[in-house]
Amino acid sequence: MLTFYYVPHTCALATHIALEEAGADYTGLRMNFADEDQKQPDYLAINPKARVPSLVTERGILTETPAILIYLCQLYPAANMAPLDDPFALAQVQSFNAYLCSTVHVAHAHRMRGHRWTDDPDAQAAMRAFVPQSVGEGFQMIEDTMLQGPWVMGADCTVCDFYLFTLAQWLDGDGVDITTLPKIHDHFKRMAERPSVARALAQEFA
Amino acid sequence: MLTFYYVPHTCALATHIALEEAGADYTGLRMNFADEDQKQPDYLAINPKARVPSLVTERGILTETPAILIYLCQLYPAANMAPLDDPFALAQVQSFNAYLCSTVHVAHAHRMRGHRWTDDPDAQAAMRAFVPQSVGEGFQMIEDTMLQGPWVMGADCTVCDFYLFTLAQWLDGDGVDITTLPKIHDHFKRMAERPSVARALAQEFA
Repeated sequence: MLTFYYVPHTCALATHIALEEAGADYTGLRMNFADEDQKQPDYLAINPKARVPSLVTERGILTETPAILIYLCQLYPAANMAPLDDPFALAQVQSFNAYLCSTVHVAHAHRMRGHRWTDDPDAQAAMRAFVPQSVGEGFQMIEDTMLQGPWVMGADCTVCDFYLFTLAQWLDGDGVDITTLPKIHDHFKRMAERPSVARALAQEFA
Repeated sequence: MLTFYYVPHTCALATHIALEEAGADYTGLRMNFADEDQKQPDYLAINPKARVPSLVTERGILTETPAILIYLCQLYPAANMAPLDDPFALAQVQSFNAYLCSTVHVAHAHRMRGHRWTDDPDAQAAMRAFVPQSVGEGFQMIEDTMLQGPWVMGADCTVCDFYLFTLAQWLDGDGVDITTLPKIHDHFKRMAERPSVARALAQEFA
């Protein structure tokens, strides 16, 4: 049994989709940033970084999306969510996930989490104004050089697809028109049709 | 045979240390940001993100430090650089590496790469001024909640240690006094004594 802590509209959705794709036995616990659930002592004992997702397992607690995603691939190999038996192909999956977490998600975070990098309101506003450009460049790089098609890694749907879909949901709010990114737009529509995605979203917004 | 592209003073050092620890058969190719080597067409054909590290293998090219590090662990299992046979322990390694790439390295990058997130010089200056706080908080989190000791993951030295050492080298320039972080300071000194680190640094600054 796994316990999964998440907040709607966050990168935790990628883990949520993976749990659904795997048919995992898990309990999802929804939190709310508006109430600062993530800063309460009970949650800080689980994740002192005050972020989501967190996954509580029989062995202990895991945080950080790229780590949790590969762990779920290993825990549920029958779900075939990553090329676990091919170190090079797995490294390509990891490279993609690392780009999302360290570049694309970070660019997005400058819209609403500028306080992480400055306490100057004017500078935070300047960061916000730049988000369409920085997020747009990150997705353009994916469009032009990474998304093999039909799925990110080619023929097989992997955790990269769950993660890309999760961040692509933010494009409209980030001021990037997804229709200017035809491969990503097509990918987004196909991901949205997966039953696992519908189930994860239904839980998050129930 | 592997070909490794790096720039001194960057996160590529973590990969360089791993290559040395593994006794890998590789050629290191030094580049220079001052000459904008990373933006030349020959290099963009290798890594369109115009960043380092890049690792050229017989199967293809890999980028992004967390991905390359785990790949090297798998390519050289005898070097015992990660707990490959224990998915949960491996996920802990990956979680640590993800924190470094998505939070700690990103905080540091606001000192000299603010142009990634705003074109406003005043906002870039505000970001620079905040780096001691944001980088300091990231390292304090590692000091308080992650570094098990003597190595990051406990008894065994892993790629997490190479990566932490690499980013800890930047603390002085980031305005953070490493002596205020006793576990990280002790770790830094022990890492600096490893022959692999000496060899990697000697090559980078030869």
